[in-house]
Amino acid sequence: MSQSSETGDSRAAGSSFFDVRMRGFRDRADVDDVLELLSRRVRPLPPETIRLDEAFGRVLAQDIVSDVAVPSFDRAAMDGYALHAEETFGAGSYNPFDFAIIGESLPGWPFSEGVRTGEAVRIMTGAPIPKGADSVLQAEAAEEVAGRLRIREAVSPGRNVGHKGEDIDVGAVILRANRLLRPQDLGVLASIGQGRVAVFRRPTVSIVITGDELLPCGSRPEGFRIVDSNSVMLAALTCRDGALPPSVQMVPDSRATIEAAILEAETDVLLVSGGSSVGQEDHAPRILADHGELAVHGMALRPASPAGVGFLCDRLVFLLPGNPVSCLCAYDFFAGPTIRRLGGRSMDWPYQKRRLPLARKIVSAVGRVDYVRVQIVGEKVEPLATSGASILSSTTRADGFVLVARDNEGCAAGEEVQVFLYDG
Amino acid sequence: MSQSSETGDSRAAGSSFFDVRMRGFRDRADVDDVLELLSRRVRPLPPETIRLDEAFGRVLAQDIVSDVAVPSFDRAAMDGYALHAEETFGAGSYNPFDFAIIGESLPGWPFSEGVRTGEAVRIMTGAPIPKGADSVLQAEAAEEVAGRLRIREAVSPGRNVGHKGEDIDVGAVILRANRLLRPQDLGVLASIGQGRVAVFRRPTVSIVITGDELLPCGSRPEGFRIVDSNSVMLAALTCRDGALPPSVQMVPDSRATIEAAILEAETDVLLVSGGSSVGQEDHAPRILADHGELAVHGMALRPASPAGVGFLCDRLVFLLPGNPVSCLCAYDFFAGPTIRRLGGRSMDWPYQKRRLPLARKIVSAVGRVDYVRVQIVGEKVEPLATSGASILSSTTRADGFVLVARDNEGCAAGEEVQVFLYDG
Repeated sequence: MSQSSETGDSRAAGSSFFDVRMRGFRDRADVDDVLELLSRRVRPLPPETIRLDEAFGRVLAQDIVSDVAVPSFDRAAMDGYALHAEETFGAGSYNPFDFAIIGESLPGWPFSEGVRTGEAVRIMTGAPIPKGADSVLQAEAAEEVAGRLRIREAVSPGRNVGHKGEDIDVGAVILRANRLLRPQDLGVLASIGQGRVAVFRRPTVSIVITGDELLPCGSRPEGFRIVDSNSVMLAALTCRDGALPPSVQMVPDSRATIEAAILEAETDVLLVSGGSSVGQEDHAPRILADHGELAVHGMALRPASPAGVGFLCDRLVFLLPGNPVSCLCAYDFFAGPTIRRLGGRSMDWPYQKRRLPLARKIVSAVGRVDYVRVQIVGEKVEPLATSGASILSSTTRADGFVLVARDNEGCAAGEEVQVFLYDG
Repeated sequence: MSQSSETGDSRAAGSSFFDVRMRGFRDRADVDDVLELLSRRVRPLPPETIRLDEAFGRVLAQDIVSDVAVPSFDRAAMDGYALHAEETFGAGSYNPFDFAIIGESLPGWPFSEGVRTGEAVRIMTGAPIPKGADSVLQAEAAEEVAGRLRIREAVSPGRNVGHKGEDIDVGAVILRANRLLRPQDLGVLASIGQGRVAVFRRPTVSIVITGDELLPCGSRPEGFRIVDSNSVMLAALTCRDGALPPSVQMVPDSRATIEAAILEAETDVLLVSGGSSVGQEDHAPRILADHGELAVHGMALRPASPAGVGFLCDRLVFLLPGNPVSCLCAYDFFAGPTIRRLGGRSMDWPYQKRRLPLARKIVSAVGRVDYVRVQIVGEKVEPLATSGASILSSTTRADGFVLVARDNEGCAAGEEVQVFLYDG
């Protein structure tokens, strides 16, 4: 008891926590350092085994080795006639050869006898090649006349035959761990008899929205209250990044309610929107420092400087500014890569990129990364004029964003920059 | 009765249907003509109204005009102190000015009185600017001393104030119809009080898998039977393209069962896998011609030449070859763009593209489009050696594909080609 109480006291009084409320950040963390911290401390979640029809877009947790050959028998690759190729040599338009049709081989319904000299078996794509035959003459190069086959083309041995194991050999590694499963991967897994597959578990996420001025989504803004826009945006972002549908909770701006919401969350990731900055109602950093680890608070990043990152038991906690552009920016910089990593995905940006010249200069400041919303007009990059942290419509009017590196004072007109495109 | 029977007869005997079974295609349709036909005949489905938290990745069915201003009041853009800017002019580190703190304005909790000369109001980001104040001095530039405010910086009028309507003006068109909704779009919609949104309905899809040789997904291949790989692959592809989860049915290779499955499907789109070619068990084209319209059968496309496209009442029917690579190719060429279009999306390829030089030549034939699986090795494009229509693993080993245009005999080594990348 005494020990744990001491620990609690020492944490609360510890010099590691600097209360920024109404004083401002002493210094701000470098974005790259935060990302380095996250990539060091975040590991994919344990695997789970799921059905193939749920596996599209999931991430393989282990290598897949086939214990069967696909196909497991020689089969026709065309519709036509199975026969012994050597017997067709010399056949041509002016020299047709005739064969006796002794039966047929259909997919799933093999012709069980052998094929001898002068004989052919009608065969459909995918059907087993009967014994004695070594090739398939395609249907269009022959005709059936009074129950006999007349061919006008020679065929070479092995022609139009799909050989046992030609798709997949026994023992072949067909897919590697960490692969984001494609539609066709599911087909290949089905073909080797795997109806289930081990993938990394999807992260669970709680979203806690703070702010007494906020009305829930679906309300009409009225008086001095605005409608919460961060919860639907964050839920969509976590969906994009492979998380399960999150739980969303709106709590009043009091230390007790925010503390309860943070401590009660039992998900892999907790996103706290609002109350992360230097205002007197900004309780979340203190709560995280008291109960867990406030690893970073204050980023050298505009417009998301009041963001924070911490740990609470095994959970990752992201303190996201309430201003919606800052919230989007802080999510995309820190929470997004973390959620993707937990689900076994890449921490890289999920946006397509294009390199294009700037139509106008961008002014930034040395010492911080700038997240600048831009439009692409006539293959040139136009920074948006109206783009404060609270102007969420800047991110809907924009085609994407440009990042100005921390060592840059900005970018000159005409300079080629990398644009991250909001649309896939 | 008699009329309808005549119509049925005339259709069955109609010269428009050429039965290709065991004879081959007379001619094959040009891929571009088929796409042109589809873009002419396929229109987005009617809209439906859904909740914002279900709207990520859906397509807007109408322009969105705001009937509110966001914000609907002037508010603080920083934590700090609301005051009258003119009174701060001349303040500096060596010339601090003092103000009386007469109250505070919090988000959702405005300060209801006015601010007079010599007074300031403590204010948090997002809180309403009280009457009489016109700017916010940020918290870090001031300190509270014995209940009074001491400032060491001047602030200009309007500084750190977010003005009414600065994000969204009344009457502004904030999003246009046909937009694929981004996470931040949902936030903007929430902020103007829209809890629901009209989007194009998602297409419904039935998948009918034919082939007596097929075992259902989850089985182990045995004897002369293989496991159906097309249903899980097609289901994932339709999911990617915005359809609702499809119904899947496996039917035996008989005219009656396939006919029943085709006629009973009541979805917007019907995908029939297998039985589309020139084999005697290939019933689907005949069934479609008898009951609806077999618009195209046989494509100038390798490996998907036995594909077909048709219409049955209001439904779109795609006859996809059973060979899995052909199935993937035919889906991606014809069914995919159709499903995307029905849901209001773009018919363009859903793959990212890169232009890179070929490491080795690709041999094709004039008169058909070739779908060639390739790997990217050291920034060069390597066509895969083993890549028959039945080798689905070629599409998992490949990084993407190259299309050889119908007028080309192939592409030379070193030539720059466009690669469509399977992975996003």
